[in-house]
Amino acid sequence: MIVLLKPNTSNEQVANFENWLRSMQLQVHESRGETHTILGLVGDTTKVDIELIKALDIVEDVKRIQEPFKNANRKFHPDDTVIDINGSKIGGGNFALIAGPCSVESEEQICLVARLVKQAGATMLRGGAFKPRTSPYAFQGMREEGIRLLLEAKAETGLPIVTEIMDLSQLPLFENVDVIQVGARNMQNFELLKELGKTQKPILLKRALAGTMQELLMSAEYIMAGGNENVILCERGIRTFETYTRNTLDISAVPMLKSLSHLPVIVDPSHGTGVAKLVRPMALSAAAAGADGLIIEVHNDPAHAKCDGPQSLTPDAFAELSDTISKLRSAIQL
Amino acid sequence: MIVLLKPNTSNEQVANFENWLRSMQLQVHESRGETHTILGLVGDTTKVDIELIKALDIVEDVKRIQEPFKNANRKFHPDDTVIDINGSKIGGGNFALIAGPCSVESEEQICLVARLVKQAGATMLRGGAFKPRTSPYAFQGMREEGIRLLLEAKAETGLPIVTEIMDLSQLPLFENVDVIQVGARNMQNFELLKELGKTQKPILLKRALAGTMQELLMSAEYIMAGGNENVILCERGIRTFETYTRNTLDISAVPMLKSLSHLPVIVDPSHGTGVAKLVRPMALSAAAAGADGLIIEVHNDPAHAKCDGPQSLTPDAFAELSDTISKLRSAIQL
Amino acid sequence: MIVLLKPNTSNEQVANFENWLRSMQLQVHESRGETHTILGLVGDTTKVDIELIKALDIVEDVKRIQEPFKNANRKFHPDDTVIDINGSKIGGGNFALIAGPCSVESEEQICLVARLVKQAGATMLRGGAFKPRTSPYAFQGMREEGIRLLLEAKAETGLPIVTEIMDLSQLPLFENVDVIQVGARNMQNFELLKELGKTQKPILLKRALAGTMQELLMSAEYIMAGGNENVILCERGIRTFETYTRNTLDISAVPMLKSLSHLPVIVDPSHGTGVAKLVRPMALSAAAAGADGLIIEVHNDPAHAKCDGPQSLTPDAFAELSDTISKLRSAIQL
Amino acid sequence: MIVLLKPNTSNEQVANFENWLRSMQLQVHESRGETHTILGLVGDTTKVDIELIKALDIVEDVKRIQEPFKNANRKFHPDDTVIDINGSKIGGGNFALIAGPCSVESEEQICLVARLVKQAGATMLRGGAFKPRTSPYAFQGMREEGIRLLLEAKAETGLPIVTEIMDLSQLPLFENVDVIQVGARNMQNFELLKELGKTQKPILLKRALAGTMQELLMSAEYIMAGGNENVILCERGIRTFETYTRNTLDISAVPMLKSLSHLPVIVDPSHGTGVAKLVRPMALSAAAAGADGLIIEVHNDPAHAKCDGPQSLTPDAFAELSDTISKLRSAIQL
Repeated sequence: MIVLLKPNTSNEQVANFENWLRSMQLQVHESRGETHTILGLVGDTTKVDIELIKALDIVEDVKRIQEPFKNANRKFHPDDTVIDINGSKIGGGNFALIAGPCSVESEEQICLVARLVKQAGATMLRGGAFKPRTSPYAFQGMREEGIRLLLEAKAETGLPIVTEIMDLSQLPLFENVDVIQVGARNMQNFELLKELGKTQKPILLKRALAGTMQELLMSAEYIMAGGNENVILCERGIRTFETYTRNTLDISAVPMLKSLSHLPVIVDPSHGTGVAKLVRPMALSAAAAGADGLIIEVHNDPAHAKCDGPQSLTPDAFAELSDTISKLRSAIQL
Repeated sequence: MIVLLKPNTSNEQVANFENWLRSMQLQVHESRGETHTILGLVGDTTKVDIELIKALDIVEDVKRIQEPFKNANRKFHPDDTVIDINGSKIGGGNFALIAGPCSVESEEQICLVARLVKQAGATMLRGGAFKPRTSPYAFQGMREEGIRLLLEAKAETGLPIVTEIMDLSQLPLFENVDVIQVGARNMQNFELLKELGKTQKPILLKRALAGTMQELLMSAEYIMAGGNENVILCERGIRTFETYTRNTLDISAVPMLKSLSHLPVIVDPSHGTGVAKLVRPMALSAAAAGADGLIIEVHNDPAHAKCDGPQSLTPDAFAELSDTISKLRSAIQL
Repeated sequence: MIVLLKPNTSNEQVANFENWLRSMQLQVHESRGETHTILGLVGDTTKVDIELIKALDIVEDVKRIQEPFKNANRKFHPDDTVIDINGSKIGGGNFALIAGPCSVESEEQICLVARLVKQAGATMLRGGAFKPRTSPYAFQGMREEGIRLLLEAKAETGLPIVTEIMDLSQLPLFENVDVIQVGARNMQNFELLKELGKTQKPILLKRALAGTMQELLMSAEYIMAGGNENVILCERGIRTFETYTRNTLDISAVPMLKSLSHLPVIVDPSHGTGVAKLVRPMALSAAAAGADGLIIEVHNDPAHAKCDGPQSLTPDAFAELSDTISKLRSAIQL
Repeated sequence: MIVLLKPNTSNEQVANFENWLRSMQLQVHESRGETHTILGLVGDTTKVDIELIKALDIVEDVKRIQEPFKNANRKFHPDDTVIDINGSKIGGGNFALIAGPCSVESEEQICLVARLVKQAGATMLRGGAFKPRTSPYAFQGMREEGIRLLLEAKAETGLPIVTEIMDLSQLPLFENVDVIQVGARNMQNFELLKELGKTQKPILLKRALAGTMQELLMSAEYIMAGGNENVILCERGIRTFETYTRNTLDISAVPMLKSLSHLPVIVDPSHGTGVAKLVRPMALSAAAAGADGLIIEVHNDPAHAKCDGPQSLTPDAFAELSDTISKLRSAIQL
């Protein structure tokens, strides 16, 4: 961490400030220029509150050298994290293909889609039970009953299930859920992240619409600081000025996050674009960029899905895509 | 609502679709062009799920004429909502000046600041007890104890208090809090909004970093649909590419939201800019644009605040600002 | 085009408006609802000025059904445009690999890089002679002399050359340049676009930092409306709030633009990310998404390039990438 | 400027690098930490190419302490710049009210509007002769004839005129124009800026849709580096995800730019919002934030304007606004 002091700082102020920094187990290297004094801080600066230092009268600017995340940082854990979800692995060369409908709608529906996506190569089943919807008047999901139906589909097909939690109070219902999804709108629901950090459940953490990559990693850090290292990062589109797509899927987040962190990184091309015809090319694109997996909406009858239908694939289209991804990955030796 | 059908839709498909729409108590007006058929839907389209209709095979596009929010809509409630908070009013020409420190840090601090801002013209006291912080290693607020201290400051000064809730489970602690703040990161925490809709507490609802004005109004609608009409909207900056300010404070949201909705609209120039020297001009700017109030960070000792110090005003600067706002408002007859 | 009239429009106003529309060779279909009247306009609405209609007192809203671009529109030209640049083709399955240094710096440099990228599979040579730089104090390119050196490299290697024009007055210097690049900052330099439309030179048109896909296509339309159909669209990153990358490369623009238009679409992963380690994964990603080509910065000595060094590849890295792209494209049958 | 070297940099590399820096007339202060070496550079770093340094193998990061602009920098010119435009002043407490139609349409129109806005308190007349339009099929302005008509309106009313240049080749036509406007799309048309720097004409420089405040100041620097110090900065809205307004008017740019630079800063609430009902509140808001002026679209007949009608004020509304701005400015002692 580098602290730039204001031009008129007195020697006494500098000395007091340095003593305070040393009391936090930091080494301080001082460099005096003609107008500015620069302090280089060495040690575990992860836990230094940069805002607090910026607020001091004598400080002009502060710059981190080290990233503010530690458990999620590849520098301290060079090897890829591999998460084993009931035998289905993700990370370290293991590619996860998570598929299923936007919402669980009935036992027939979820079990049918589960069978179809399993045949087509899916390694996990997704399906929404609790649904975050912009409007209070829109379908809010089957909720508790939806989770029960997902567990039936799991029992029938053996596919691990991924579904979204919307509030801390729902946590007991997720006991038999394999991967708990934290949606984009909850990426910075810190109370929820802290509680999830106390479990050992794999957490699929989606990037917020206005979330920087660093903030996504800091939210992973919240979970990991609690003791749960099983975090899967998910790029699902950020909000920009472009209107032809619902969001702008930031594929560059895949290689960037993987260089910064050892955690697996997956991509959601369905919500990331909101346009069915873009799901295939963006899924291939994500795979080519080195993603550790994909989460894709597949519906037996996209035209009648209760939500987000416009971005769902048919089971046949998903099967073709699954096959093409395998070819792509082996061609470029991923 | 206008539905544009695809060029090759058969007569039978059109008829089936129209029957289904009529079953939802909507009137349907059909207009056939050479290539496209257009349906005009009349009735209470607020509850129509636009995504569901877009998902249908025969539909090319759907456009709302009416806004998707109803309780928050000025069309149905032309008069300004006035919220009375223990005698302190907001809306309908009543200007609220909410001030206080970013975080509650001690009894001495919060009571001192409360007295100072009251003298300077504040109508309510703000102070963070539960603090959303990007890093798990940063100060997380005094939490339950912070709320206790705010209530002491209220007892001493008579100022109503405003403080942020971060999770549903904290609700019982807010029994004597006058205004519950929902932070930007929780603007779409729908489970929280639903519960708050069951109370009668005034809710200060902040716009999310990537929240559109329509989404802010839809989140207000979640609260109001539950029966709680006491919602105060707050513009606090959106995230853009600009880096000289922490966020871009969207002052145009004030007149736009007020034209769309009858709810009071306030502005947070402290978080909205993240820069102390911008707080005064942006506070004046918000007042000139017709805001119903301001929420401003004031600290007795900005240089030692535990968080967000860089954007806090001193009590003296706040007093001068309070006075200038009064002059401005009377000059332009607000 | 659908025009929604305001509720209180008189019959006479509607009739006058419809007559005016018919005078523009449009057919008008009227649909009267209880509160609103909707007009459906059929015919060549490309040339209707939507802003003019929106400005009318009686109009509440206007919505296009057809896109406002015509020459660039795939609906009217279903087959891919293939552009032949001295025997090097792009579009319709022909993949262009354009490589070279950010800036032309000397004859030795540009000829060396030209030979190296040709060996590695490049189909065209890029190099900046006129350089748009944010600061007036930064290196502005070798300008006229830079173009002369590019032509020498072309003579030596046979590679067609691509270089950027910054102002209309420079056009005579581009007589022997094979592809004229219009940079992101000039995407809406309409006077320049109009003049380029009068030539028959292939134009490589880059998307602006805040340019929507529709605006990019409208800028292509400016060139094509003048009679020059040889336009290559280029996605090179849009500006968002993310700071770990210089821009956010919008890979979804590739399949979206290709579905909307018949023009070739290429990607610039060098400027699109500003980070050398992201160039390879993003190049693969673009190819997997169906791009018709790539434009990549390659430098013999990235550490000493006069500009944009951080995002340049070495010739060896480029050769490996070129080879991997071929494998990827044949694996997924592009 | 602070340069952070990579951990494994050898003593020889450090020494070579420092010698090279000193050869650019910079003083170098070295600070060695356990892992990193930090160099503090003192001197005129404005002309150091930060990208070039970042590109070096041994450099991990570079951070400016001083802003990269010099002529536009308030640090070196503490007093406000006042520009005198034929007796009409702007800056240093002089408020400019520039008003007129979006486009010049006829002699009657421009002369009528000129008289009306002059009566209402306008200090300058605006009007578009060359019009940048997204579509090649939209009205492109009266061009040369439009400038002739503006000069007639100037002759009649004595109001100085402001109009936009779109290309260098049009410069001779602007000989008698008082203020040359550079539109948002040309903010980084560097060849144009350089030429304008060779004149002594006041330049009204608009911020680009994706232009940072620093980039706006760097573009002013292009003009000033050529010797023309008469630059007026103009905030006119940036592009964000919000769709209820055409752009997001960044009012915080006013106080921020004024703290960074001595140049006058004005605001365009018409283009900045694209919504007529927002022009008044945003104009007041800009004035309250300390703007040195406003540029506002006023049309005698907004419903029939050839472009941008939806955001124009009537002359009466403009007169009321002009009056209210005066009251506001004197109430808060601007």
